Amino acid sequence: MREFELLQHVFQATGKSQSVLIPPGDDMAMVQVDGVNLLAAVDQLVEARHFDISITPVHLIGRKAITRSLSDVAAMAAIPVASLGTITACPSTHDEWAAALFDAMNETADQYNCPLIGGDVAIHHETGSPMVCTVTVLAKPGLNPPLRRSGAKAGDNLYVTGALGGSVDENGLGRHLTFEPRINEALALSEILGPRLHAMIDISDGLGRDASHIAELSNVSIEIDAGSLPINHGLDWRRAMSDGEDYELCFAAEGDVPNQICQLQVTQIGRIVALSDSLKPSIIVRDGSTQIDAASLGWEHGNS
Amino acid sequence: MREFELLQHVFQATGKSQSVLIPPGDDMAMVQVDGVNLLAAVDQLVEARHFDISITPVHLIGRKAITRSLSDVAAMAAIPVASLGTITACPSTHDEWAAALFDAMNETADQYNCPLIGGDVAIHHETGSPMVCTVTVLAKPGLNPPLRRSGAKAGDNLYVTGALGGSVDENGLGRHLTFEPRINEALALSEILGPRLHAMIDISDGLGRDASHIAELSNVSIEIDAGSLPINHGLDWRRAMSDGEDYELCFAAEGDVPNQICQLQVTQIGRIVALSDSLKPSIIVRDGSTQIDAASLGWEHGNS
Repeated sequence: MREFELLQHVFQATGKSQSVLIPPGDDMAMVQVDGVNLLAAVDQLVEARHFDISITPVHLIGRKAITRSLSDVAAMAAIPVASLGTITACPSTHDEWAAALFDAMNETADQYNCPLIGGDVAIHHETGSPMVCTVTVLAKPGLNPPLRRSGAKAGDNLYVTGALGGSVDENGLGRHLTFEPRINEALALSEILGPRLHAMIDISDGLGRDASHIAELSNVSIEIDAGSLPINHGLDWRRAMSDGEDYELCFAAEGDVPNQICQLQVTQIGRIVALSDSLKPSIIVRDGSTQIDAASLGWEHGNS
Repeated sequence: MREFELLQHVFQATGKSQSVLIPPGDDMAMVQVDGVNLLAAVDQLVEARHFDISITPVHLIGRKAITRSLSDVAAMAAIPVASLGTITACPSTHDEWAAALFDAMNETADQYNCPLIGGDVAIHHETGSPMVCTVTVLAKPGLNPPLRRSGAKAGDNLYVTGALGGSVDENGLGRHLTFEPRINEALALSEILGPRLHAMIDISDGLGRDASHIAELSNVSIEIDAGSLPINHGLDWRRAMSDGEDYELCFAAEGDVPNQICQLQVTQIGRIVALSDSLKPSIIVRDGSTQIDAASLGWEHGNS
């Protein structure tokens, strides 16, 4: 089964109600409740799929469950409001481990002003069944409207915050467990750039794949300069574009952009261009005189 | 691991933010967002634990995932706003099955004006891992404030809607898959009774256990008359109190209550009494001249 295609199928049929201002398919959806705009998203963390339970400290699993969802709040340039979490645990899971997981979720949620207001615990029928943890996050818009993936325009430049690649180390640990969701940076960018900030996404599946979401939903193509990518030590640009789990921001903006935001580096990595004659959104990487269609690198269709 | 105790542990530490108007531990929590009150809850449906995937039609699994959460909305006498769903599927799950599950969730959500605005799909690492489906539901208060479990007062009468017991038939199918969440009934009761309606819960874990939540959170005891319980055909009162999955409403109210609401039977089944000398909330069942402490029946501590 393909996760991405199934979600596409689901989202085609949903969100048609008048109260739904941003339908599913972006980092968060937005719904109007008694005149107030509310954003919501849900994400899950699955044992053996998203983390190795045998080597990952429980407090980092709990932390990541929350920070991953907060990264979606950042991608919309929104403000966290509250969160809800579930775990489905194995019958042999120790009470202390499960309590520590929820404690870490709770502490992390509080740290980002996103209090855990609900939860559910269920136990699998059979020992050995993998742990599943889900987090729903609620948020509200900042001073400016939420940033969508669909707003990029030909002529915009493309930027990323921080540096990319190598988030998961050879032991399965590393920065993907300890990253900071870029909430303050996104709000600051939105305030400083105002209407010149056109589209944003967080980099969870790898820059190649996440940028393709901006291209497809904005109906544009994107050119990326391999030489300008901010790459973590010891990696090449292919790793920086494909590794994923960076949880940095990728955004399209018109005009000048500061090269730091909240003391975090901001790098121009490419530009938004009009669709070519093929009328199909594409991601082109320029590496010196070589030009590579990212479709050939397998990033066009996200299977996140 | 004990689900209920773990949730108690979690909830002790959560919901301390000023914006949290109803902390976790009720059917839904409530948070204030820019002056508007918003309710939220999350629930999960786990293969082999909550349904048998080999015999349950997929559209009924999807329906139940949504209606269970809507029953929490009913229990607060609130109005559904939107929902978000996740599934963690086995690698061998067919695309068609997964799509049909989400289609059923989507159709059910629309039917109750609770559009699906977000979702996530993940695939387990190993074949044979059980499917997990979660639904987060968002709601807003009706004309009156949401009804909590903690408002019952000595002197109130205790009521249930509909009839109890036998929701899961001998094949694992039955009414637990097709029940109607009592949203309209709860809103109508709230409007008709106003401030005389003191506490409400939906019966998911069995009347004995769910009534004990009202007793504990309201710090009262509850007397139930076995002879007055509305029992489904062929069952005795013990089954009616313990079967669960009825998704009827149980509520405490002062003064007269109509014996029908939205054409659904409403039955007085007992009363709220002050704590006895033991100062410990209890559920007492009166069966003729016999008086049974429900603690002896294993209902005092919910392990839902």
